[in-house]
Amino acid sequence: MRAVCVLGTGLIGGSLMRAAARAGRDVWGTAASEATAAAAVADGFDVTTDADAALSRAADADALVVVAVPLTALEPVLRRIDAIAPTCRLTDAVSVKVAVADAVAEFAPRTRYVGGHPMAGTAESGWAAGDPDLFDEAAWVVAADDGLDLGVWRDVAELAWACGSRVVPAAVDEHDIAVARISHLPHLFAAVLASVGAGDQGDDLALALSASSFADGTRVAGTRPELVLAMCEGNRASLLAAVDDALGRLGAMRGALASTGGLAATVRSGHEARMRWASTREPLELPVSLDGDPSAVLAELRELGRRGDVVEPWK
Amino acid sequence: MRAVCVLGTGLIGGSLMRAAARAGRDVWGTAASEATAAAAVADGFDVTTDADAALSRAADADALVVVAVPLTALEPVLRRIDAIAPTCRLTDAVSVKVAVADAVAEFAPRTRYVGGHPMAGTAESGWAAGDPDLFDEAAWVVAADDGLDLGVWRDVAELAWACGSRVVPAAVDEHDIAVARISHLPHLFAAVLASVGAGDQGDDLALALSASSFADGTRVAGTRPELVLAMCEGNRASLLAAVDDALGRLGAMRGALASTGGLAATVRSGHEARMRWASTREPLELPVSLDGDPSAVLAELRELGRRGDVVEPWK
Repeated sequence: MRAVCVLGTGLIGGSLMRAAARAGRDVWGTAASEATAAAAVADGFDVTTDADAALSRAADADALVVVAVPLTALEPVLRRIDAIAPTCRLTDAVSVKVAVADAVAEFAPRTRYVGGHPMAGTAESGWAAGDPDLFDEAAWVVAADDGLDLGVWRDVAELAWACGSRVVPAAVDEHDIAVARISHLPHLFAAVLASVGAGDQGDDLALALSASSFADGTRVAGTRPELVLAMCEGNRASLLAAVDDALGRLGAMRGALASTGGLAATVRSGHEARMRWASTREPLELPVSLDGDPSAVLAELRELGRRGDVVEPWK
Repeated sequence: MRAVCVLGTGLIGGSLMRAAARAGRDVWGTAASEATAAAAVADGFDVTTDADAALSRAADADALVVVAVPLTALEPVLRRIDAIAPTCRLTDAVSVKVAVADAVAEFAPRTRYVGGHPMAGTAESGWAAGDPDLFDEAAWVVAADDGLDLGVWRDVAELAWACGSRVVPAAVDEHDIAVARISHLPHLFAAVLASVGAGDQGDDLALALSASSFADGTRVAGTRPELVLAMCEGNRASLLAAVDDALGRLGAMRGALASTGGLAATVRSGHEARMRWASTREPLELPVSLDGDPSAVLAELRELGRRGDVVEPWK
C-alpha cells in the first residue's frame, strides 16, 4: 500500500490523513502553522511545518503526494515540490481542476500529476473539523486526460477507495464545467433567491410566509461567503457558461410567462431533469484494465465518467 | 364555537375537516364525486355531493363556509353559494388571493368574505392524503384589506388557530407578491437549475458529481408539474415581477463575473438575506383589539403582517 504525504491539514487534508491512516496507510503531512502541527501531533499524526523534510521523505518512499491547500496558496507549494521531489507521484484535492493542472505544468512540470477532487465538505474548516468518514460514498473525481501516468491514476483511485469514496474519471475541463453546473451555479441561485425572497428590510411578510421550498432553495446561501467566493471565482470561465445557460432558460421562461402565461416547458423540463437525477446509477467495478494502451484506456475512462458512472473498489 | 362547512375534500379541505373536527367543531362538507363522499363518510365525516343541501344547512347554522377547491373550479361553487347562502360567512384556502377576491366580488358579491391561505401542503392529493396535523405551526394568511367584516376575520383566525396554525394578516395583493417571491419563484428556479445541471441526455457527468447543493436546490422540481403550473400560472402578474427582480440580480452578477470576475455583492447579499430569514421572530398574541374602528384595526393588522409577525391564539 503506497505511502501518502498530505500537504495541508485543513478540513480536506486533515480528513484525508485520518481516513488514509485508518485504512492502514503510512501517512505524514505538513501544516502551515506550528499550532496546527502541534494539534495534529497531539491527535497522533505525523505532521510538521517543515515541508522540505516531508517532501524529501516522500521522494525517498516513492509516496503519493497530495496537495490539499487552497488554490490561492498553490504556487509556493508547487515550487517546493519541484525543488525537493521533482518527479513525485502527485495529486490534489482542490475543487477546480484546469487551474491546478496549469499551475502544475508551470511550477512543477516534472511531477507525475493526476488531479483529484473529492466531492465532500462541510461548512466547517481547519484540522479540528477533520473527519475520517468525510469521504464515505462521496464521488472522487480522478483526472483522465490524455498523457497521464496510469500508474499514478491507479494510486489516486486506490487512495479514494481507501477513504471510502467512489471514483469518477473525467477530463479536467469537463470536470470544471460539471461542477459549475451542479455546485457553483446552485450557490449563486441560492444567493439570488434569498435576496429576492427577503426583499427590503422591514418588508418581512414574505419571510414570514416562507416554507420548505424557500428554505431548501436558499440553504447553501448560509455557507460562509469566503468559501463560496473562492470556489466560484476560481472557476470563472466554466461558471460563466453555466450562468449563460441558466439566463437563456430564465429569459425564455420570462417571455412565455409574459406572453401566453404558460410555464409548462420550464416546469416539465425541470421535472424530467430532477427525475433523471433521482434515478441514480448503480456503482460498478472498474470495467477497464489499466494495463492496456494508455491513450485508449484514458479515453475509455473519460467516456465512463461522461455516462455518469461511478466506480467502486476492486473486490 | 362556530360550525364549519367545507366545500371540497382534497388534501387541504380533507385535512381541514379532520383538524376542525378534532378541535371540537361541528363540521360538514361536500365532495365532487360519490366515491370521495363515501370514503369520507366511511371515515366518520358528514360529507355529501349535494352542495345545495350543505349550503342550506350552513345558512341556517350561520356557519363559516370554506371554499377548498382549485382556482379553476371556483366559479360554479361561488354561483351555488350566491343562490343558496348569499350572505354567508365565507373564506377559502386557495393559494392566490387577488384572483379569488375578484371572483367572489363577481359571482357571490353579497357574502361576508375574508380570504385565507394556509401555507401547508404535501406532494400528495385527495381525501385519503388528508392529515389533521397538516396545519400544525403553519402560517395561515388571513386577508386584512379595508372594508372586510371583522367578525368574519375573527371566525377565520379562530379556525386557523383551532387547526394549530399561526395567523399572518395581509392585504391580498401583498400576499400574492410575497408568495410569488418565496414559493412560486423557488419552484421556477429549481426547475431551471435541474435542467442546467442535468444538461443533455447522455452527458451525465454533472449528475454523477452532484451533491447536497444540487439536491436541495432542485428538490421542489420533483413536485408534480400540474400542481406547480396551477400555482404559478394563477399568480402571473406578481410572479412576473419576482422573475424580473431575479433576472435583474442575475444579470448584474453575470456582468460582474464577466468583467472583474467578482461575485462578492451577490454572495454577501444572499448570505445576509438567508441569515435574516434564519433569525425567526417569536410568535406573538394578537396585539390589536378587533372591537375598534374597523378601518384602523385592519390597517394595524396589515402592518403587523408586513413586519413579518405571526399571531398565536388567545390564551
